Amino acid sequence: MLRPMTAKTRLYVDQPLGPAQPVPLTRDQAHYLFGVMRLGQGDKVALFNGQDGEWQAEVAEAGKRGGVLVCAEQSRPLQLPPDLWLIFAPIKKARTDFIVEKATEMGAARILPAQTEFTNSERIRQDRLQAHAVEAAEQCGGTFVPEVADLTKLDRLLADWPEDRRLMFCDEAEVGASKVLGDAGPGPWAILIGPEGGFSEAERRRITALPQTSVVSLGPRILRADTAAVAAMTVWQQALGDWG
Amino acid sequence: MLRPMTAKTRLYVDQPLGPAQPVPLTRDQAHYLFGVMRLGQGDKVALFNGQDGEWQAEVAEAGKRGGVLVCAEQSRPLQLPPDLWLIFAPIKKARTDFIVEKATEMGAARILPAQTEFTNSERIRQDRLQAHAVEAAEQCGGTFVPEVADLTKLDRLLADWPEDRRLMFCDEAEVGASKVLGDAGPGPWAILIGPEGGFSEAERRRITALPQTSVVSLGPRILRADTAAVAAMTVWQQALGDWG
Repeated sequence: MLRPMTAKTRLYVDQPLGPAQPVPLTRDQAHYLFGVMRLGQGDKVALFNGQDGEWQAEVAEAGKRGGVLVCAEQSRPLQLPPDLWLIFAPIKKARTDFIVEKATEMGAARILPAQTEFTNSERIRQDRLQAHAVEAAEQCGGTFVPEVADLTKLDRLLADWPEDRRLMFCDEAEVGASKVLGDAGPGPWAILIGPEGGFSEAERRRITALPQTSVVSLGPRILRADTAAVAAMTVWQQALGDWG
Repeated sequence: MLRPMTAKTRLYVDQPLGPAQPVPLTRDQAHYLFGVMRLGQGDKVALFNGQDGEWQAEVAEAGKRGGVLVCAEQSRPLQLPPDLWLIFAPIKKARTDFIVEKATEMGAARILPAQTEFTNSERIRQDRLQAHAVEAAEQCGGTFVPEVADLTKLDRLLADWPEDRRLMFCDEAEVGASKVLGDAGPGPWAILIGPEGGFSEAERRRITALPQTSVVSLGPRILRADTAAVAAMTVWQQALGDWG
């Protein structure tokens, strides 16, 4: 671990950050920093809260059940991801966790689990998925944590679809179809990834009936949902996002 | 599971396939088809062997310790992936398995685990990784299984680097650097993904000193190795591979 960005401990906190700002720790955070990471008074931690960029902070008080960090200076400005949603159908638990992790790394602004006709799961643990997004943001050096929405029916999402949000629809059945995204302009976008088992014909019709929809092919092989999420976000980030 | 391509059981076999060709099963294959998948005489299985495309076969004999399938007709021609290697540094076991799975789905022709200065693992289970590649090929509807090479020192790979093989180097330290791959032409390529902890300065110098090397950025966030593998292969497949 030699690179400065991953060498230091990074922690997401739900509190304001600024010069000389004290940051009291929750019990879980104190356990992580002092129990797991073995930090002590005077040690450095990088903090971010999704709003004030990344700050270098120092351990002022370390205890078993709590502690206080004090911010020194800002080490990185806030970098918001592009206005990109990732919509996916929850699959097996481990794969769902991966999708949230990968969507965070790849720079989604919002992650929306959607229930489709062929979705297996009736419910998700939103709090657990949100915690995965936090952890991924801590790992990937980001200064922003995407919100993980509650499980919503895909039909409802489509019925209320925002007029100004383009939709990149990655449909395995449409191998070969490939609109160029480049002529669409940046603006708000969403990527929709199918569940294992694909979409139903009715769903496919409803999705492609939206004038905001562009159908995009992810190559000649069938990708698992977590692979498809990364591939689709790569296509989008390259064409319209912050990879320029 | 309604789509024809994923509905049927797919099995990789190490034997010739052709019209009316009988295919004897190993004990493991018989256990999978008849024990796990509950198939019986007359049921259909899709077979591929990496050479003869995909064949529809029927169960002629089903037993606990073996059985025989008989090929009917070819359902898909052989589709070889482009001549693309994926070189990566093995990390935690689960992540290494994922990289092999994802490289297979994304269409690598060869997967090469490489030992770098910051690689944690001294050895890999090549047979286990190869089995993961087989399983991923069975899942993703491919007709080809990439070979997983034995663990090799990165220095040796670089010292013997084939003159005609271009190298796409995804270096997290080089955020922003981004050569366009399009002007390089297809031909043989390799993608090199860094380990957690990145490459050493000496390694970075050796890699970039190769005239075959193109440095490519994978965006402003730090990606885990398995995410980076999918993202890098997406960039390559779009520009030079079989996603056209």
